[in-house]
Amino acid sequence: MTGKVYGLGLGPGDSELVTVKAARLIGATPVVAYPRTQHGDSFVREIAAPYVPATAIELPLDTPMAIDTAIAQAKYDEHAELVAAHLEADRDVVLLCEGDPFVFGSFMYIYDRLADRYEVEVVPGVSSITACAAAAGLPLAGREDILTILPATLPEAVLERELAQTSAAVVMKIGRHLDKVRRVIDRLGATGGATYVERALNPSQRVVPLARLTDAEAPYFSVILVFRDTD
Amino acid sequence: MTGKVYGLGLGPGDSELVTVKAARLIGATPVVAYPRTQHGDSFVREIAAPYVPATAIELPLDTPMAIDTAIAQAKYDEHAELVAAHLEADRDVVLLCEGDPFVFGSFMYIYDRLADRYEVEVVPGVSSITACAAAAGLPLAGREDILTILPATLPEAVLERELAQTSAAVVMKIGRHLDKVRRVIDRLGATGGATYVERALNPSQRVVPLARLTDAEAPYFSVILVFRDTD
Repeated sequence: MTGKVYGLGLGPGDSELVTVKAARLIGATPVVAYPRTQHGDSFVREIAAPYVPATAIELPLDTPMAIDTAIAQAKYDEHAELVAAHLEADRDVVLLCEGDPFVFGSFMYIYDRLADRYEVEVVPGVSSITACAAAAGLPLAGREDILTILPATLPEAVLERELAQTSAAVVMKIGRHLDKVRRVIDRLGATGGATYVERALNPSQRVVPLARLTDAEAPYFSVILVFRDTD
Repeated sequence: MTGKVYGLGLGPGDSELVTVKAARLIGATPVVAYPRTQHGDSFVREIAAPYVPATAIELPLDTPMAIDTAIAQAKYDEHAELVAAHLEADRDVVLLCEGDPFVFGSFMYIYDRLADRYEVEVVPGVSSITACAAAAGLPLAGREDILTILPATLPEAVLERELAQTSAAVVMKIGRHLDKVRRVIDRLGATGGATYVERALNPSQRVVPLARLTDAEAPYFSVILVFRDTD
């Protein structure tokens, strides 16, 4: 007998935007695992706080900033084995994820390493895509709209090509790419239809028309919504 | 004093995939409004069932199938006025939405009609986009992936152009467009990387590789996930 692992999407940050299912599973599962930064912070552990019982075995996973280096991959190997050790002892594990586990999260690196060997259930969460739209009061897509989701880490030319072709886009994980993304949107003449959303639906949320944003940098948890008339 | 309206995303169908916030608001708000089909069914009312108190004033909104006709627009005018009547009497209203309110839902037609006149709060929900990925066990996007969300109602040539350009796509609301979408995916040689998901995370869920799907038609609540190697 081995345990089961649940990948739980906990939404954009407000503990009330956790699903009833994720809240129940956090309370009922012996091991609660979550990523932690090198500074010892865990945003997703904060989101889960109201639901983590005092009896939980906590398993913080120290997560590297970069993901494509050999060091980072070795870290994910290590995390998978830390989780697997509990599964082998027939203890179920919940793995907490910001937003949705399958949209630009680090969960998929552990998923890739465990899904063939153990039972894994993914519980979807409110993704930052729809959280940002709700925060800004801007419907994302209706009728025959096309919606494009782009990470801000893409090369400038790729961002420009993609944004030039779509009527609605969410550019994710702005962070230190703010200048690049702004340049591209400016060149496309799309600044008037662009909205910057930082920490959607969190107490420190900011929603600012891109044309009025004077910041030089943005946090990782920020997006730019771009709506253009392409007809 | 006028009431406030909440647009609540209730997720893909499982009542446990409702957020803690939406569950609380359903229980605490005097008027519970929801779309209802011409047959008198309301899928979203079923999702909400565990959270609707016996004391709620229920406001079913008979919703047309088509959305772009003058008759449909008149219906949405009528719905907005039904909701507004409660707001004018200083009663708050929750408006229940399948999935997320701002992703291909009928909520935005009422939102357009009320947001200028009343306080409207949108509470995001688990969208069918991520629910289908969770059901299929297929991560949607990571690292520098681009994700395209397309309604199956698009003309065949537009679908083909969009799918030819992206490495990951979710084609929504398959319904009677199954043949058309399948033809396009076949022509692009992408059938091997395509998965059909029907009623994700509901008891009647089906996940079938597109290559093995023999159905001639699909329900409205079905999507096809398409992953292609475009490098």
